[in-house]
Amino acid sequence: MSQADDIIRKIQDGSIKIGIIGLGYVGLPLAVSFARKGIEVLGFEKSAKKAESVSAGKNYIGDIQDEELAAVVKGGKLSATTDFPRIRECDALIICVPTPLDKFKKPDMSYIEASCVEIGKHMKRCTFISLESTTYPTTTEDFMKPIIERESGMKEAVDFWLCFSPERVDPGNRTYKTENTPKVVGGLGEDAQRIAMALYGKAIQHLYPVSSPRAAEMVKILENTYRLINISLINELALLSGRMDINIWEVIEAAKSKPYGFQAFYPGPGIGGHCIPLDPFFLEYIAKGFNFDLTMINAAGNINNLMPYRMMNKIAFALNRHKKAMNGSRILFLGVAYKPDIDDPRESPAILVMEQVAHKGAEVSYHDPHIAEIVDEHGRSWKSVDLTDEAISNADCVVFTTNHSIFDVDRIVEKARLVVDMRNAVKRTHIEDGKVFKL
Amino acid sequence: MSQADDIIRKIQDGSIKIGIIGLGYVGLPLAVSFARKGIEVLGFEKSAKKAESVSAGKNYIGDIQDEELAAVVKGGKLSATTDFPRIRECDALIICVPTPLDKFKKPDMSYIEASCVEIGKHMKRCTFISLESTTYPTTTEDFMKPIIERESGMKEAVDFWLCFSPERVDPGNRTYKTENTPKVVGGLGEDAQRIAMALYGKAIQHLYPVSSPRAAEMVKILENTYRLINISLINELALLSGRMDINIWEVIEAAKSKPYGFQAFYPGPGIGGHCIPLDPFFLEYIAKGFNFDLTMINAAGNINNLMPYRMMNKIAFALNRHKKAMNGSRILFLGVAYKPDIDDPRESPAILVMEQVAHKGAEVSYHDPHIAEIVDEHGRSWKSVDLTDEAISNADCVVFTTNHSIFDVDRIVEKARLVVDMRNAVKRTHIEDGKVFKL
Repeated sequence: MSQADDIIRKIQDGSIKIGIIGLGYVGLPLAVSFARKGIEVLGFEKSAKKAESVSAGKNYIGDIQDEELAAVVKGGKLSATTDFPRIRECDALIICVPTPLDKFKKPDMSYIEASCVEIGKHMKRCTFISLESTTYPTTTEDFMKPIIERESGMKEAVDFWLCFSPERVDPGNRTYKTENTPKVVGGLGEDAQRIAMALYGKAIQHLYPVSSPRAAEMVKILENTYRLINISLINELALLSGRMDINIWEVIEAAKSKPYGFQAFYPGPGIGGHCIPLDPFFLEYIAKGFNFDLTMINAAGNINNLMPYRMMNKIAFALNRHKKAMNGSRILFLGVAYKPDIDDPRESPAILVMEQVAHKGAEVSYHDPHIAEIVDEHGRSWKSVDLTDEAISNADCVVFTTNHSIFDVDRIVEKARLVVDMRNAVKRTHIEDGKVFKL
Repeated sequence: MSQADDIIRKIQDGSIKIGIIGLGYVGLPLAVSFARKGIEVLGFEKSAKKAESVSAGKNYIGDIQDEELAAVVKGGKLSATTDFPRIRECDALIICVPTPLDKFKKPDMSYIEASCVEIGKHMKRCTFISLESTTYPTTTEDFMKPIIERESGMKEAVDFWLCFSPERVDPGNRTYKTENTPKVVGGLGEDAQRIAMALYGKAIQHLYPVSSPRAAEMVKILENTYRLINISLINELALLSGRMDINIWEVIEAAKSKPYGFQAFYPGPGIGGHCIPLDPFFLEYIAKGFNFDLTMINAAGNINNLMPYRMMNKIAFALNRHKKAMNGSRILFLGVAYKPDIDDPRESPAILVMEQVAHKGAEVSYHDPHIAEIVDEHGRSWKSVDLTDEAISNADCVVFTTNHSIFDVDRIVEKARLVVDMRNAVKRTHIEDGKVFKL
């Protein structure tokens, strides 16, 4: 029996132990999914607070049911630690750490690198290692593998196996969770792929195998680049439509009546979240290494970088119609989450607009029923204000930046002096009417 | 009873007479649809040959059943003429003429203009006029209306009504034809919209009203701009993937396993047909008048302009692997239609590639089971050759430019010396293997 068959046997009889590195919105749901199938999972976290919370059965991720986490911890199938040498206890390791971009849109690979160093130092022979973090194609083969080989003195495909399998977590999606979202799996070599399919097959209902890690890496980038360029296109068309007195929201709804070949995207103050604003720039980064400029991503990035400034202008010129300067005006923003009905302000364009407007001298406040406080990158913090009639009517301008479904739009428009609507919260055909100004 | 009510009454009791200007792939199916509902239709055509053909009940459009056309002509509901003064017989006029771009991607409005001049000269008072030709937003209000008012001496909304309702014909689509494809309707003013809804409702199952002609004009542009930029993105990613040894076709299929938020587009030698390569540039044209540069469309246009040249390079370097120069090599192209299983070579990128390859000294031939002969813009003509074993094996390189489903790919690959596959005709993971080179 080969060593790959040995690990597959352990997967099949349930005796395998999985280590999951990084217990965030990707790693923790995955850990719970495996543990629910009776597999022992050890979570690795740099944050002692998170590790303790998990080991105590306390949940901190919106997409996990509290009781589910508590049950698998109580059943002894899931625990967490900050003690990375315990990697040697595991037969399989899944890396779910963040891959942010720095200020210059260069990938910050330090979390993956640190994980690979710990793995190389501590893993036992014949460990299977899968990366889930979004990254540029070639990372698994050309970045991970050399680090692990160097640190461990072992050889890939002989002493350990590698795989890339991109996470597809969509926070707040009520239909598609970790277990029922099809998962793309790209093992490096046949043995790695056989192990990967057996392992993920334990927790995930549908697997989609591809021929290599780099193909799997490209899949995730393609999915999010598709979204970036389509949101950018519709933002650009929204700005043009504004000049041409065309309501872009009406146009999009009408285009949706085409029964084939169209998917609707909507404009807004920019792109937020942890995927769409980031992933395409991983590809742009590696493409430069291949002497290749990605002109579509570049154009899309420019449009989105500009949107918050365009939105600041929109507010300024709406105030101008009321013969007010932005400097000294009171502006109330509604919604700072990056999409409706979630509590996540990461990369939210609303915050960029608020910063710009504050920088021009406005008195800025915000209300978000899901986010009590935000801190911007300069360390400035805002607390959500109550959405009283007084708060609305005192503002020189009320701005819809996120279309939370809880907002009572009619009441807000009635009480407000001036409304700038970046999310089609106010259903009107005219794009401006003296009181409501639509993107 | 208002004059608008009068025309609506005629629509309802079936006594209205409709004139359709332009009996091409848009106008003729529409004419048949109205005639099938018992409404009298008079087609106007500059081409005597087409007009005679229609009046004789002879069909020349792929998406129409021969018997349907024959039946409505025989029943006296449809006839055609070259005699534009007969416009005065009609209560409603629908313009279905082409709007090409010239060589410099400037809209050629001459067909719409000529139609409007004829209408203005000959129409009777209280005529309803709808434009279906794809064009830039504001055309109906700012281009059509002044011409008709000038030529007729009549006043829009008083003496005649205007509407824009974009055609959505997808040649070869077996599910969605004229009658069951939802139709966007943008009348200018309330009366025009009421008439438009009543009129189109006679022939089309689902109507989608919008608030203005310019919104309707933008809908069509949005639909096709969406397609242009997504095809351009995937072409750009295909070129990068080639350098990175990633099979883009495999990546696209894997991305399709994502159950939400993704729509697949496929790379190829460029974009063809009569809509996608043209429509976005109508918007680019009018945007310049609003001091607006559409950077996404611009980037997308650049990529597509380059694709035929990139494909010529691909063929040249595949030949180079076999130590052959393009100059003097025999190259056989398979498929010159712009999409599979149709007989339309308009704007087909295959022809552009053939021209470039011929220009570099290759001996070019093609086979297309649906297109017997093509003539390029320089007047050079090619005739389709038979796809014999000898024709395949004599070629230094066989190129898949259109993926007609009738092609016996296995046989072609077996007999060929070298294959360049721009359409994923050959299902393989490796993007090159010495014999087959995939885009």
